[in-house]
Amino acid sequence: MPLTLKDIAKIAGVAESTVSRAINNKPGVGEETRKKILKIVEEYNFQPNKLAQGLAKKQTHILALLLPDLSNPNYPTIIKSIEEVANENGYQVVLCNTDNNPEKEKGYLELVERNQVDGAIVVGGELADRHILNLALNKNASLVLVNRLCEELTIPTVLVDSARGAYLATEHLIDQGISEIALIMGLDREFLESEKLEGYKQALTDNGIELNEKLIVQTEGSREAGYRAFLELMKKGVTPGGFFATSDLLAAGLVEAIKMGGYLIPEDFSVVGYGDSLVSSIITPPLTVVAEPLTRLGKLAARNLINLLNGKQPAEIIKVLNPSIKVRNSSTPHIKDK
Amino acid sequence: MPLTLKDIAKIAGVAESTVSRAINNKPGVGEETRKKILKIVEEYNFQPNKLAQGLAKKQTHILALLLPDLSNPNYPTIIKSIEEVANENGYQVVLCNTDNNPEKEKGYLELVERNQVDGAIVVGGELADRHILNLALNKNASLVLVNRLCEELTIPTVLVDSARGAYLATEHLIDQGISEIALIMGLDREFLESEKLEGYKQALTDNGIELNEKLIVQTEGSREAGYRAFLELMKKGVTPGGFFATSDLLAAGLVEAIKMGGYLIPEDFSVVGYGDSLVSSIITPPLTVVAEPLTRLGKLAARNLINLLNGKQPAEIIKVLNPSIKVRNSSTPHIKDK
Repeated sequence: MPLTLKDIAKIAGVAESTVSRAINNKPGVGEETRKKILKIVEEYNFQPNKLAQGLAKKQTHILALLLPDLSNPNYPTIIKSIEEVANENGYQVVLCNTDNNPEKEKGYLELVERNQVDGAIVVGGELADRHILNLALNKNASLVLVNRLCEELTIPTVLVDSARGAYLATEHLIDQGISEIALIMGLDREFLESEKLEGYKQALTDNGIELNEKLIVQTEGSREAGYRAFLELMKKGVTPGGFFATSDLLAAGLVEAIKMGGYLIPEDFSVVGYGDSLVSSIITPPLTVVAEPLTRLGKLAARNLINLLNGKQPAEIIKVLNPSIKVRNSSTPHIKDK
Repeated sequence: MPLTLKDIAKIAGVAESTVSRAINNKPGVGEETRKKILKIVEEYNFQPNKLAQGLAKKQTHILALLLPDLSNPNYPTIIKSIEEVANENGYQVVLCNTDNNPEKEKGYLELVERNQVDGAIVVGGELADRHILNLALNKNASLVLVNRLCEELTIPTVLVDSARGAYLATEHLIDQGISEIALIMGLDREFLESEKLEGYKQALTDNGIELNEKLIVQTEGSREAGYRAFLELMKKGVTPGGFFATSDLLAAGLVEAIKMGGYLIPEDFSVVGYGDSLVSSIITPPLTVVAEPLTRLGKLAARNLINLLNGKQPAEIIKVLNPSIKVRNSSTPHIKDK
């Protein structure tokens, strides 16, 4: 059982508020007393910040969920599973749309700093934002990251191995006998996109296919960008046998452009998307996709945050979940004949 | 210029806090003084609640946006336009997913009651919830409704005339020479769905077509429900010439079922959907839909709420916007020949 503030106060023979001031490095505590308290804290391997926080903070029983892009068709599933766990544990969830804008993200993280919410789950977005680092460093915030990595710190993180996902997608296309595989991706400064790029490259290497940089198109990730990526490749005279698009929206635009050009899927071009959402199954033909365990991802993230709020660190600081491939008609020319 | 609390205090020759207590009907004010203050308030046609609220409330500069269903593909556009106006005016927006669950909705509205947010925009959902009524009646809350109607009160509301939208959809099918038009809808206890039902009926009446109740299928509104609705009609031997599905998801499921049955769209069945979202344009063939002015809807709602927070009522308490019809390939058999 962890030591409480009360326990420390008893051991040190001072008031609880003195302990709180001492471990929060606030004035009003004599140097002697402060040292004494910190020594006890150290001896008992006590995590002062969580406890101090519990004392200092008025609990709101609200959790913030920061999302970088509301039109991502995978998010409703993640949101629902987070809410389910949160509600079961007496927490409400408010969603914050950051639009991948660091200023907006900073603004929402201030809800945590100002104790307007108890903690936050930050989903996706770019690599290790300085503000998240600072917030976690000053330790007054309970944060959990989902599909985002903060390399310099040990913020509890749940993520899907997107490199593995991209590897599976690329390998699946190679298994169809395709060696010229175009990668239509988002910006590689986003952690998940850079991971997917690595997975794509690894699958080529492992199958003895040389990397052709001309086949990689970085875009801002929208449906329109997927459409334009196809035209761009055609204009350059690059005609791959298959495409791996790293998001549903990119895949949707790509498929439109292919059809608009009068080509058939999968007869002329095989297409694999990323994310098993409504969009990928509504497209004609239904898309082969990398499917992520979104419900598990959301539930784990919510449990981690609630545990944190109760002073418990997760067993694994960084938990990696595995994606799988869901084969539909867009990548298998003769699935019925096989 | 509206009268301030300070003005009233000056006129009455009392402290501002006394004025506040008097108009909030709180103890600590003599009966004589209370009457005097209330008389001034009445004389100057002063709205006590808004002002009292400004005094009593600690401003958070956060607005809550309550949404009944996160997977609705129209919401990202509404959310973005609300956020745009809010951010321009120095407000953050937090999103609350009510899942059409009155308990969850109540929980989020309590954020307003407890002043954890300054006000709320409530989107869609069922008719006039008692809790919203009460919250508005006790007047301590700044609320704006979007696509939802609260008949007994004058809560500022912005809505799209969905009856008109359904009318346009039905009339469009009639214009294609179709008289047997199936209506695949959500539950009519939801305000918008009941409105669409009325619009559908009116279009039939205006065109001298008798209502056939067998052609109306009420569902819970999901993609699966759209799929089942088609099978249900076929099983009953009902074969309409066209379908009007009142949401994108219903249309998506309906289209799948039609194709699965080996029928062609629009050659065998014309289909019109509701809502100009990603889904409706990705479906093959792209769907003719009723398009709503979602950006305008969101911006108006946000402006109304911010005005309310500044003590200004909107010029029109209930503002009705008109939808339009966007014709694509799902309803026009020979569009190129015409």
